[in-house]
Amino acid sequence: MTDTVNRILISDFESLVRARLKKLLSTAPAPIKAQTLYLSKSQGKNIRAFSLAVCASDGETLRDETVGAASAIEMLHLATLVHDDIIDSADKRRGVASLHKVFGEKVAVLCGDYLLSAALVSAFELSPSRFRRSDELGTVLAKQLSEVCLGELRQNDNYRNFSISEREYFKIIEGKTAALFKAAYLSGFMLSDEADEYAEQYSELGKLTGLMFQLSDDLLDYELSEKQAKKPVLADYTHGVITLPLIYTMKNDPDLKTIAENGIAPDKLRKMVQDAGGIDYTERKIDNLLKKAEKIIKNLSASDSKKELLYRIAMKSAGKN
Amino acid sequence: MTDTVNRILISDFESLVRARLKKLLSTAPAPIKAQTLYLSKSQGKNIRAFSLAVCASDGETLRDETVGAASAIEMLHLATLVHDDIIDSADKRRGVASLHKVFGEKVAVLCGDYLLSAALVSAFELSPSRFRRSDELGTVLAKQLSEVCLGELRQNDNYRNFSISEREYFKIIEGKTAALFKAAYLSGFMLSDEADEYAEQYSELGKLTGLMFQLSDDLLDYELSEKQAKKPVLADYTHGVITLPLIYTMKNDPDLKTIAENGIAPDKLRKMVQDAGGIDYTERKIDNLLKKAEKIIKNLSASDSKKELLYRIAMKSAGKN
Repeated sequence: MTDTVNRILISDFESLVRARLKKLLSTAPAPIKAQTLYLSKSQGKNIRAFSLAVCASDGETLRDETVGAASAIEMLHLATLVHDDIIDSADKRRGVASLHKVFGEKVAVLCGDYLLSAALVSAFELSPSRFRRSDELGTVLAKQLSEVCLGELRQNDNYRNFSISEREYFKIIEGKTAALFKAAYLSGFMLSDEADEYAEQYSELGKLTGLMFQLSDDLLDYELSEKQAKKPVLADYTHGVITLPLIYTMKNDPDLKTIAENGIAPDKLRKMVQDAGGIDYTERKIDNLLKKAEKIIKNLSASDSKKELLYRIAMKSAGKN
Repeated sequence: MTDTVNRILISDFESLVRARLKKLLSTAPAPIKAQTLYLSKSQGKNIRAFSLAVCASDGETLRDETVGAASAIEMLHLATLVHDDIIDSADKRRGVASLHKVFGEKVAVLCGDYLLSAALVSAFELSPSRFRRSDELGTVLAKQLSEVCLGELRQNDNYRNFSISEREYFKIIEGKTAALFKAAYLSGFMLSDEADEYAEQYSELGKLTGLMFQLSDDLLDYELSEKQAKKPVLADYTHGVITLPLIYTMKNDPDLKTIAENGIAPDKLRKMVQDAGGIDYTERKIDNLLKKAEKIIKNLSASDSKKELLYRIAMKSAGKN
């Protein structure tokens, strides 16, 4: 750490990341510019970026290069979304037509590849001297990206598998969702002033947060009617992806498994899962994960304000606002 | 360079890389194993790996970790082929059914992403202390991968563009083909004992070699009949990809442009391009590139045996065996 370290306020972070992402996407080289400009117009909530920032902070401020690291992780996330939408034949993303719908699948495959490599390049261009560990940001991102792919492949292998076990389901979401949260927490830690011995705790906290994030997203499908959610619900079920509320329901009642397998209207399926306790069971799982996360946060050596922020992210990911 | 450096013979290199690639592909995690095993059964000629090895060598021997670097670049190349075949709707690759034909497009998108991230991870796991420059192998690979994507996107933008300029065509192949050769030459140099000041020459030599490689591949389409080539020829033209022999032909005779645009049988197109001098022109271009490559090789500070090997790769890429 021989360079001068400039610090910024956490409260300034979100707008800085949004601006950086907008800039990265709107100044891409000519052959990809139309696509990245299109993507820049509908940014997500950048929860991975914010998680990374909190982990990198002392609770109040953080190193300014955290903005670059967080932008890299959001770009990587965006790359996986572009490919996901092709794979899921999804028409919409973040309220607008998905990239492959507008520009075609071929271009979307290439655009995902470009974003992926550009994200890793920008990660590697961050001065390694800023990181205290031998693992570099790009290495962490590339490793967790391969876990995302494996999770997606597992999900694909379990297409319409109504006998999927809870264990296999957790393997899927540990890859497809939790891996990037793990990457965010670990990279944040790498940019922080926390002692080296806490690496594993940050990594585990990222995993738990990602799992809760996915479980509460899965729950939404079973809690709200299409009217309440203001978007198509039970899209997972329709696409042959079986999530925890239904897995629990089917495990406890073979008749309900047969019904789900034969096809059932969303509103009826929802009621069936609610009545069978699939929602309650999933909520208990989330609560257990939240307790584990709280315990890890409590035992960190971080400042109280940092712990409070980490706790808030965990709560939010658990769907408890 | 504090670690002990183990050196291997160039003559042992090819079988070591083949074995390493086979191992990497056949020991992949469960969700991707069927696909990587399938891919491991039809290895290519590993010309990028061999180029990297020669650049890393002193003409006789090279550091043993060159095997890992070369395997990473071949895996990255393989990842781009898997996605290319989806994009080109290609049925075959290296004589066997292409991955997406066997496992479906969704799995092929994910498999490409997995190979890509795994290649970068394996590149980063090579001890950075072995490289003399601040740029790491993974960074070089990720950067050149983004250039490959841009080249492919340019090619896609020029689908059935019969007015494509020679300049635009060279931009396409500089990305889609030459970028990975550039990466191979540069990473080889990084693992060599050559003086730092030669980095640019190795990079340029890689680019020239990649351009010649692509041009002579394009030429094959116009030189051989289907019977002679023992595979479908003029597939590029059929897929709306216009290459240099035809670009030259159309530029010099607007009537021939109209004919090509309206569609013409492969054998007639071949004769038309041959008669119009499209082959001769492309061969002259290759000869010019080869002269430039020779000049660079001549001015390197490398051993005579290394220069000889570099020259042989250039000749082979130029289609002059």
